[in-house]
Amino acid sequence: MVATGGYLYEHLADELSQAIDRGALRAGDRLPSVRQLAHERSVSVATVLEAYLRLENAGMIEVRPKSGHFVRRRALATAEPRAPRVCVTPQKVTVGGAYTKILASMRDPELLPFGCATIDPSYLPMAALNRTVIQILREIQTVEARYEAAPGLLTLRRQVARRLVATGAVLGEDDLCTTIGGTEGLSLALRAVAKPGDVLAVESPAYFGILQIIEGLGMRAIEIPAHPRNGLDVDGFEELIKTQPVKAVVVSPTLLNPLGSIMPDDAREQLVRVTKRHDIAVIEDDVYGELVFDGTRPRPLRAFAPGPDSHVLLVGSVSKTLAPGYRVGWVAGGRWQDQIVRLKHGASLACPSLHGMAVAEFLASGGYDRHLRRLRAALSGNVDRYREAIATTFPDGTRVSQPRGGFVLWVELPQGVDSLQLHEHALRKRIVVAPGPLFSARGRFSNFLRISCGTPWSPRVEAGLDTLARMVARAS
Amino acid sequence: MVATGGYLYEHLADELSQAIDRGALRAGDRLPSVRQLAHERSVSVATVLEAYLRLENAGMIEVRPKSGHFVRRRALATAEPRAPRVCVTPQKVTVGGAYTKILASMRDPELLPFGCATIDPSYLPMAALNRTVIQILREIQTVEARYEAAPGLLTLRRQVARRLVATGAVLGEDDLCTTIGGTEGLSLALRAVAKPGDVLAVESPAYFGILQIIEGLGMRAIEIPAHPRNGLDVDGFEELIKTQPVKAVVVSPTLLNPLGSIMPDDAREQLVRVTKRHDIAVIEDDVYGELVFDGTRPRPLRAFAPGPDSHVLLVGSVSKTLAPGYRVGWVAGGRWQDQIVRLKHGASLACPSLHGMAVAEFLASGGYDRHLRRLRAALSGNVDRYREAIATTFPDGTRVSQPRGGFVLWVELPQGVDSLQLHEHALRKRIVVAPGPLFSARGRFSNFLRISCGTPWSPRVEAGLDTLARMVARAS
Repeated sequence: MVATGGYLYEHLADELSQAIDRGALRAGDRLPSVRQLAHERSVSVATVLEAYLRLENAGMIEVRPKSGHFVRRRALATAEPRAPRVCVTPQKVTVGGAYTKILASMRDPELLPFGCATIDPSYLPMAALNRTVIQILREIQTVEARYEAAPGLLTLRRQVARRLVATGAVLGEDDLCTTIGGTEGLSLALRAVAKPGDVLAVESPAYFGILQIIEGLGMRAIEIPAHPRNGLDVDGFEELIKTQPVKAVVVSPTLLNPLGSIMPDDAREQLVRVTKRHDIAVIEDDVYGELVFDGTRPRPLRAFAPGPDSHVLLVGSVSKTLAPGYRVGWVAGGRWQDQIVRLKHGASLACPSLHGMAVAEFLASGGYDRHLRRLRAALSGNVDRYREAIATTFPDGTRVSQPRGGFVLWVELPQGVDSLQLHEHALRKRIVVAPGPLFSARGRFSNFLRISCGTPWSPRVEAGLDTLARMVARAS
Repeated sequence: MVATGGYLYEHLADELSQAIDRGALRAGDRLPSVRQLAHERSVSVATVLEAYLRLENAGMIEVRPKSGHFVRRRALATAEPRAPRVCVTPQKVTVGGAYTKILASMRDPELLPFGCATIDPSYLPMAALNRTVIQILREIQTVEARYEAAPGLLTLRRQVARRLVATGAVLGEDDLCTTIGGTEGLSLALRAVAKPGDVLAVESPAYFGILQIIEGLGMRAIEIPAHPRNGLDVDGFEELIKTQPVKAVVVSPTLLNPLGSIMPDDAREQLVRVTKRHDIAVIEDDVYGELVFDGTRPRPLRAFAPGPDSHVLLVGSVSKTLAPGYRVGWVAGGRWQDQIVRLKHGASLACPSLHGMAVAEFLASGGYDRHLRRLRAALSGNVDRYREAIATTFPDGTRVSQPRGGFVLWVELPQGVDSLQLHEHALRKRIVVAPGPLFSARGRFSNFLRISCGTPWSPRVEAGLDTLARMVARAS
């Protein structure tokens, strides 16, 4: 994977890469320190640093702050799904009926929920949260006799701001507005920066919920390829805006759903710079931001565009980490903050207070970080097992993403397999999967699936994936 | 108030009306039965019926089912505020900063909340609701680990449908979608039936939240006069649509906020008929529907336009009766139901389940009806006291509405008093009032105030109204 060449660092990188491929260095192994390796090989520290950087960029190793370099988890050598090519025609968005079916399927516990990006209740700290809720109700009996109109509960905004500051995004409570989950945050952000008919750049593949919102608002989408490991192709974006009147770009730099990709810092910096120069708003979907497996927290785009006049709007929620049913989310609207508050007044006026208070308390107590550590470990284990099962049972020609966090896999099936049909067939076998075309405004990815690994591994899960594998084999 | 004339029934009505005005018949008194009076006066039953109908239409008496005719509460003979004239230019809506200030003021318990249409927590059954919430959390610990995507919680939709059926609106659970309060219901309904730039007919005065939503959606509003007692002027509406391309009409037939008016059945029937003929959608805001003082429940417009293909969209919530902080509302989208569900997916995806479950249980238990009886009695008493205070302390030329339910008064101040200025002055004295121009897309009602009677009578309330009275006197 690492090209050989004339330079010392290239040889060194190549050698290490082969050691990893052969299994001499295994996932999780710590690499020698930079100084140590420089000493052993009699090369400069700069050469080792450069070699490590190449391996890191190739996704083979990772840096853990204060710990050193480690070989990344790579369950299998299965190839990654391919990114699509650029296409420059803005599309009116129409998300198919599969979306509604997937949402409806969430209500049926008899179905295997590979289709929804939700995690099993057993992973969530419901007991602790419920205790907090009950305590609040006992202490403030009338807590829900009133509401907090937007911008919403101060204690929650304060806690969220505090967490964001730790990621490098300098925000205060006044920069935030609470929302009904991340969905309302995205919807308000889009409404604030664009109007019906306007062109938005989205990732390809994109989270289908965003396409659904864009459809509802009568806006148009133009797709920018996203790489399974590094996310949005910023060069492609830069090329595109030369010819297209793009009003805003919606992007998930940390763990794009469905890819699990992470945009490198230099790509983030480039995106913020380019959009600022061209006066294009950036809507940053950060709902997976806390779920990077190695526990690092990449700097949000917002950190690269500080100040109240920021052109980056940051959207977050606790739906992927704490309690989807709470519908607790937020948006930092940057220069559109006042407008977002006004739009929220008209969209839903206020969020329920009780759950906001419970979340604020959970964040303040430190319970959230302890919970996140356990959750990331569990999800990382799930992703490995699901990935291994797919790699070993699905037919040749299948490619699987290697997400760096979160809990979904992006699976490219052999050419010719129709994933919409597969979705229908699977549903008859009581298995829900998300078909690829959902993730595109133009119906791309007809032979792709998103598979959620939010359910703990079990014989039932294993049998379900096996059934899917046979279906794919028959269809290919 | 009742004109004399040549007919027997007119004389009879006139006589009774004078008896009421003189105090011989007092608020709450039962009138003789129709047969009894016919016998006493030696007139026909038809004549008495006609006389009673005239008094009823004049708002002086009311029918209580199975009990007979009663003199209506009329604290004072203060004149009613006047309805505005028709104006046929659609307006781009801009709601002023007073709106944001009023919402912000809700957070400060030190302020006298005459400005917000919210009721004091002491009127709400929070203890009972909290018990239900705690019980649900104990029985289903993971209730909030999942969410119910739109159309939302089945048990809640079923209970709401059941209550609506009792009002004459034949609806099933599938006809409903749960929303974040009535606000989201109105927003989704508007988005389903109209697009930016479209013209909507609204009442004048209108609930300012609706104007806020319309502003956010970039639609235009055209105002139809509403009468303090009978609400929307349907003849005026019919005249207007001859020349204006009205896409939809937003209307509160039962207890329009701020008037407390109730549209008579024939006006309801006429509105439904006319709109159907002209293919105009009707968005019915029914959030005050349960708060008619005499306990009657006028048939919603939706009852006049039955079937899944209905052109009437009904919006309701429990925010005015149970728990504003729950943000539990609903919309019956008629022929736009599927579209509303899709729009809800993009707007906020799902409502919190716990509160929906608690409300469903409260409705099913019969607790809601018991609570409503107490609540209506309390609010009716408040409205009478506030009204009396205003009538006796505000300067000559003040007119006050005589609401038939709810808890707000619409006060017309002497010509020349600037209610926006008054709002500012009052705020400095820690009193919040809602200035008239908020209730109009064209800044009408500059000498009107809405005063909420949701706070129990107390020396503080009395002093606050007194302060207002002096301010008005100085300004007039």
